Amino acid sequence: MPIIHILNGPNLNLLGQRQPEIYGRETLADVEDACRALGQEMGMDITFAQDNFEGGLVERIHAARGVADGIIINPAAYSHTSVAILDALNMFEGPVIEVHISNIHKREAFRQHSYVSARADAVIAGAGTHGYRLALRHLAELLA
Amino acid sequence: MPIIHILNGPNLNLLGQRQPEIYGRETLADVEDACRALGQEMGMDITFAQDNFEGGLVERIHAARGVADGIIINPAAYSHTSVAILDALNMFEGPVIEVHISNIHKREAFRQHSYVSARADAVIAGAGTHGYRLALRHLAELLA
Amino acid sequence: MPIIHILNGPNLNLLGQRQPEIYGRETLADVEDACRALGQEMGMDITFAQDNFEGGLVERIHAARGVADGIIINPAAYSHTSVAILDALNMFEGPVIEVHISNIHKREAFRQHSYVSARADAVIAGAGTHGYRLALRHLAELLA
Amino acid sequence: MPIIHILNGPNLNLLGQRQPEIYGRETLADVEDACRALGQEMGMDITFAQDNFEGGLVERIHAARGVADGIIINPAAYSHTSVAILDALNMFEGPVIEVHISNIHKREAFRQHSYVSARADAVIAGAGTHGYRLALRHLAELLA
Amino acid sequence: MPIIHILNGPNLNLLGQRQPEIYGRETLADVEDACRALGQEMGMDITFAQDNFEGGLVERIHAARGVADGIIINPAAYSHTSVAILDALNMFEGPVIEVHISNIHKREAFRQHSYVSARADAVIAGAGTHGYRLALRHLAELLA
Amino acid sequence: MPIIHILNGPNLNLLGQRQPEIYGRETLADVEDACRALGQEMGMDITFAQDNFEGGLVERIHAARGVADGIIINPAAYSHTSVAILDALNMFEGPVIEVHISNIHKREAFRQHSYVSARADAVIAGAGTHGYRLALRHLAELLA
Amino acid sequence: MPIIHILNGPNLNLLGQRQPEIYGRETLADVEDACRALGQEMGMDITFAQDNFEGGLVERIHAARGVADGIIINPAAYSHTSVAILDALNMFEGPVIEVHISNIHKREAFRQHSYVSARADAVIAGAGTHGYRLALRHLAELLA
Amino acid sequence: MPIIHILNGPNLNLLGQRQPEIYGRETLADVEDACRALGQEMGMDITFAQDNFEGGLVERIHAARGVADGIIINPAAYSHTSVAILDALNMFEGPVIEVHISNIHKREAFRQHSYVSARADAVIAGAGTHGYRLALRHLAELLA
Amino acid sequence: MPIIHILNGPNLNLLGQRQPEIYGRETLADVEDACRALGQEMGMDITFAQDNFEGGLVERIHAARGVADGIIINPAAYSHTSVAILDALNMFEGPVIEVHISNIHKREAFRQHSYVSARADAVIAGAGTHGYRLALRHLAELLA
Amino acid sequence: MPIIHILNGPNLNLLGQRQPEIYGRETLADVEDACRALGQEMGMDITFAQDNFEGGLVERIHAARGVADGIIINPAAYSHTSVAILDALNMFEGPVIEVHISNIHKREAFRQHSYVSARADAVIAGAGTHGYRLALRHLAELLA
Amino acid sequence: MPIIHILNGPNLNLLGQRQPEIYGRETLADVEDACRALGQEMGMDITFAQDNFEGGLVERIHAARGVADGIIINPAAYSHTSVAILDALNMFEGPVIEVHISNIHKREAFRQHSYVSARADAVIAGAGTHGYRLALRHLAELLA
Amino acid sequence: MPIIHILNGPNLNLLGQRQPEIYGRETLADVEDACRALGQEMGMDITFAQDNFEGGLVERIHAARGVADGIIINPAAYSHTSVAILDALNMFEGPVIEVHISNIHKREAFRQHSYVSARADAVIAGAGTHGYRLALRHLAELLA
Repeated sequence: MPIIHILNGPNLNLLGQRQPEIYGRETLADVEDACRALGQEMGMDITFAQDNFEGGLVERIHAARGVADGIIINPAAYSHTSVAILDALNMFEGPVIEVHISNIHKREAFRQHSYVSARADAVIAGAGTHGYRLALRHLAELLA
Repeated sequence: MPIIHILNGPNLNLLGQRQPEIYGRETLADVEDACRALGQEMGMDITFAQDNFEGGLVERIHAARGVADGIIINPAAYSHTSVAILDALNMFEGPVIEVHISNIHKREAFRQHSYVSARADAVIAGAGTHGYRLALRHLAELLA
Repeated sequence: MPIIHILNGPNLNLLGQRQPEIYGRETLADVEDACRALGQEMGMDITFAQDNFEGGLVERIHAARGVADGIIINPAAYSHTSVAILDALNMFEGPVIEVHISNIHKREAFRQHSYVSARADAVIAGAGTHGYRLALRHLAELLA
Repeated sequence: MPIIHILNGPNLNLLGQRQPEIYGRETLADVEDACRALGQEMGMDITFAQDNFEGGLVERIHAARGVADGIIINPAAYSHTSVAILDALNMFEGPVIEVHISNIHKREAFRQHSYVSARADAVIAGAGTHGYRLALRHLAELLA
Repeated sequence: MPIIHILNGPNLNLLGQRQPEIYGRETLADVEDACRALGQEMGMDITFAQDNFEGGLVERIHAARGVADGIIINPAAYSHTSVAILDALNMFEGPVIEVHISNIHKREAFRQHSYVSARADAVIAGAGTHGYRLALRHLAELLA
Repeated sequence: MPIIHILNGPNLNLLGQRQPEIYGRETLADVEDACRALGQEMGMDITFAQDNFEGGLVERIHAARGVADGIIINPAAYSHTSVAILDALNMFEGPVIEVHISNIHKREAFRQHSYVSARADAVIAGAGTHGYRLALRHLAELLA
Repeated sequence: MPIIHILNGPNLNLLGQRQPEIYGRETLADVEDACRALGQEMGMDITFAQDNFEGGLVERIHAARGVADGIIINPAAYSHTSVAILDALNMFEGPVIEVHISNIHKREAFRQHSYVSARADAVIAGAGTHGYRLALRHLAELLA
Repeated sequence: MPIIHILNGPNLNLLGQRQPEIYGRETLADVEDACRALGQEMGMDITFAQDNFEGGLVERIHAARGVADGIIINPAAYSHTSVAILDALNMFEGPVIEVHISNIHKREAFRQHSYVSARADAVIAGAGTHGYRLALRHLAELLA
Repeated sequence: MPIIHILNGPNLNLLGQRQPEIYGRETLADVEDACRALGQEMGMDITFAQDNFEGGLVERIHAARGVADGIIINPAAYSHTSVAILDALNMFEGPVIEVHISNIHKREAFRQHSYVSARADAVIAGAGTHGYRLALRHLAELLA
Repeated sequence: MPIIHILNGPNLNLLGQRQPEIYGRETLADVEDACRALGQEMGMDITFAQDNFEGGLVERIHAARGVADGIIINPAAYSHTSVAILDALNMFEGPVIEVHISNIHKREAFRQHSYVSARADAVIAGAGTHGYRLALRHLAELLA
Repeated sequence: MPIIHILNGPNLNLLGQRQPEIYGRETLADVEDACRALGQEMGMDITFAQDNFEGGLVERIHAARGVADGIIINPAAYSHTSVAILDALNMFEGPVIEVHISNIHKREAFRQHSYVSARADAVIAGAGTHGYRLALRHLAELLA
Repeated sequence: MPIIHILNGPNLNLLGQRQPEIYGRETLADVEDACRALGQEMGMDITFAQDNFEGGLVERIHAARGVADGIIINPAAYSHTSVAILDALNMFEGPVIEVHISNIHKREAFRQHSYVSARADAVIAGAGTHGYRLALRHLAELLA
């Protein structure tokens, strides 16, 4: 049974309370529930975490090495500013799917570049919180 | 039963014969079959087309107006150079999902910008031909 | 009696149905009627065409060589991306007036540059569909 | 009877004496006469002024507030360097038409950007001194 | 009695010991004392904190939501590199005043851009540690 | 009793009548009154002036040399385009505080750079007309 | 006997009638004759085509796959704007020679970059219509 | 006897009192005296003026048309920001020498570009106030 | 006996396990051992630390103030993104040597700029883990 | 019998020993032999030289003035950095053909610009050492 | 009697034979004669040299150290590309005057930047060969 | 016994006499002595050379091919401008260490890029003349 680590970046702990016209009204707990439900249906073991610290995310990626079969990461603001997270992901051997709730390609110029994309196998942006589930489905496909 | 138009840009008629290390070995007919199968399963009516002409894609998008409930488009090379396709999509009222087989954010600088993304509701890149099916699932979610 | 070719670029066939807050509610047929009426009043022979294909516009410009005394062109999206249309216009001997319905200088950065302007004798932007008639008046002045 | 203020920027007092291969041989008095004639024909009250000072143009625009129904402005060199004129025009409620005698889009790079265009309703460039009359016609259309 | 959170970014714990020719000789404790004194005088409840971690500042901003009536933030080095702090501030409903002890607009190019300014209601730079008190006065004005 | 010259740039004579959603409804006379009141309270002699001409502001700064103890300047549009005002301020020996009513760092790119900031001791932006009074308080602090 | 496809881009159908100071007076038929003559002499089978449509050129390149031993292409204006043609050439297995009649490196900045050069084995620019024959000789060398 | 107009830009009225480490201790009156002395020696009639207004300089250049045989201009800050002065000089038929007291090529980036240089016949920078006399000598050479 | 703090940035805890074609197979413990051995030989007291958090490194640099005689820092990914670390180093009085295991000047563009280099006395890149020992030797030289 | 000078830039003396995957295995002597053979066949007098010094190439171009009927130059590394060679070629009256063994348009960004191309009549890149012979053929055509 | 070294860069040995519309018809020997004549008149000892090699100019500047009282240098093409000459001049203690025969500020963009200007005390451009004599006069002034 | 060639670029012959605040007071002969001493100690055969000519350095690198086991190069000013030296080093098979006496990353922007770094195995900057000895030690390590 494949193990999937789902990692969430800064400010996502407040999802649903924050700019709902951009990010929707679902909370991160709702996302976690939906992912766990789909994981159960598809036979995947889900670890779900959120961290507001760049170094915290780096260490969570380190922890996934040799443990997880795939990573789904929504690096949020750190997408645009963190080389450290990119480097950590470069040390992970399995597939990495990058998820953005909003379509970052439509927003401010500084949000249109993600360092993480240079490592990610696939990028899903703008599909709302449904994007996490699409990412899970894609990992299932890749790991099958 | 929602109607989905799936539009494919230049050179995709040769999918599977072309740079398989980037685009895989599946042909466009295989993609169409997989989309139709999933469409049937999910109760969606699929129209599938490919065009090597920018003007041809513009007119196919025009034809979707008032007919299709959603568009999935892989604009291929025209992603990076066509304002005309962006303008045509701006006239379509329903959701638009942009799909790229490869992760364009990892490739040459000129492939990292897509005019179409300024209109697309969601963008899925790097999920291979599976990306089309993820897009279908997302349209199903949006149109539900 | 001077012959004027009025050429319209991609998506203009849907004028009036498309983003009326930017482009107004008049259709391209309305524009054609207004141009013909003014042409008749001013003693000018009007040919009016629209094409969604870059190559189609190139060939329509070729067809104007040796036939038309002046060209009015609204290249729409191809303004910003087509060197081929610029090159075709460079082969036309008479005056060329470039028309944009909206004031492109106020819109997205990529709409603020037009390749065609490097050839056009005059550029009229933001005067709505009235711009075509201003262009006709200016051609009348130039050809007088 | 609508009141139109026509404002001319620096060096235009020498129109006709200056680089006639670019700007033609008509003087600013000739332009004024032609505008007044057309204004009379179309039932518009014309105020015509020229100023070599940026601050002078700012104050002439202030003076048009609550008085003029529309402004036609050829900001000449200040097009490219004056935020103050842009700000002054932003305080004027009626339509603003920007006129350039030459096609600035064909000239030096620094002449291809106009701050004023960010406020103008329409921009007419390259129609020579005829551009002023086209602008008058367009104001008539807008104010009708 | 309005509640104000005053947040300080990295290296400010060493204020007064650090490059006094740029930042002066007052310590952060001195600044806190001066702010508390003025807060008492103006009837404002002051919370004062410093954090060297980007994630720490993000969480302190989260903690201010629903509690503080206004935030004064000197993001120090993170001004120039943190989208995460900008995003956290975007979730805070009250006024935000950004303070820089030195005039960042006179320093190295990379210090002249602040992500936080895109959210701040007001920015005060170069007023030394007095800037905190100006910010308090301005919050008092805004919250009155 | 310290002498303070408060200088205002182009279009500020129309403050309160102009884009109130950006600049508020207070007039420049209101600002002057508030500054004089605070000046009286703090024992400062206030000279208050406005000029729409770049050269006019240059000469007003010249006039402050050897007379004023400090300058507060809101250069308005000339912030972004005037090296002459920067050079004039470089000849003034006392402190200079730059004030912007709106937060220029949130507005169009061309408003985000101020030549004057290269000389100003402090910059206060976005505090509305209250910013003038904050600047007065800061001058009082500096001159004490 | 090696098969060579010679493809010509937009506006080249009017070669000889167009800006002879840049492109010379020879027509495309003259070029074709000269190529066929040299092909016959060197034992090469020549297919010669011109297309004004980007999509048309894409499809002509597709048609060369598995048929032609080498391609000579003068992409004309599409050199500078077409990723689709680059992608089509990337699917062709044999050698590709890019020809420009004029020395594009001496012309406007936008003509100095060719997407096609990223794929071409050799580029010959500025040798006039003789460049086609040099390209044929080089293909002969490569295919020998 | 040739007539030379020597024009000085903003802030030069304070020459000698301003940043002497950059501009030296000589006043503009000293410069005028030195120029008149050399003019007398070389048989040239000198008109010497200074203006802090861009429009003022434009009009002084207009006044030189048909009167002066040559212009020496130190545009000071307006070198870097004024297209209007460039345009005015473009209307003057005789030689134009641009003088800068300091070597602008060593100073801030924005001082390294002068619009006026696009028109000037010669540019002399960094020779201090002696540069005016070198310019006079060069005009003498040109007009001989 | 001089005290040297050797600080290591994010992901270096996994040195040797990570992209050995770039970073080699030695672990950070191996590096520490080699440094301690050389320190002992050269009479230097070595403190060796690694941190994945930007704020953690900032605080470790703070801790070196008044304690360490020199710092050797390999800021890893934070080299390219951290102004906070630069500011912390600016508060350290002794020499700072920056070490990169790989030659960052040969890698992706974003790795070719290091904020830390603006403070470092010397930079050693591409010497593998031997670079730490070269840095120690250089500190010995500087502190002698 | 026309005289052709063939000039080769730095490092070409080691042709064949250097990066054969880019430049092939033929030596410069082989190239010279092939050029002489073709020259003899076509009735051209060949002078062949190589120089590692920029100044040396400048002087060799000087020496060709009034002697050679045409120049073929492979400026190698100096293509990208030498204005001096461009200036020297600008003094040569006859045709100049620029040759690059590799297709520089596919290589590092700094190799994609050649100063020499601004002067060359034709540019041949990527045809290997055969490019020299194509250049000879083209000179024969031009000089015929 | 002050000693002046006048150094000339590449291609200047052909002055007068080269692009006379830009550089005039005087030869370098004429310039030398004129300089010697003026030197004699003003009591200055002139050494005059020309070199086509960057390294040659570097060594001629070295030779001037401790010998010459001032240098006049026309670096020609090396102005735009040589840091080595800048570095050599940085080691010379006396005044350095940079001369360009043409007004480089009016020419191609790459000619508008001179590395040497960062060291030169004064720059004289566009005064033709007279510029050398102006430079001599200025050195006389400086050394007086 | 490994053979090491140490190559020094332009102006380094004057080391110690030149800007000692940047480059120190040691002469190049001192550096050579120190290198020879260390070479002897470590059993390495040192060849030490300096050249002011770009072509001279190219040829010295050629001479090292097949002879030297490693190169230490301080390209000085040519670091920033020479592709020819990069190309020459690309033909050398052994390790290359690039040394800069000053920390070029702290200096003018144009000194922060080195073409040579694209080839160097390691880069040591800012370690003064000690950097040469560090480079020798690193070569010893690499060649061991």
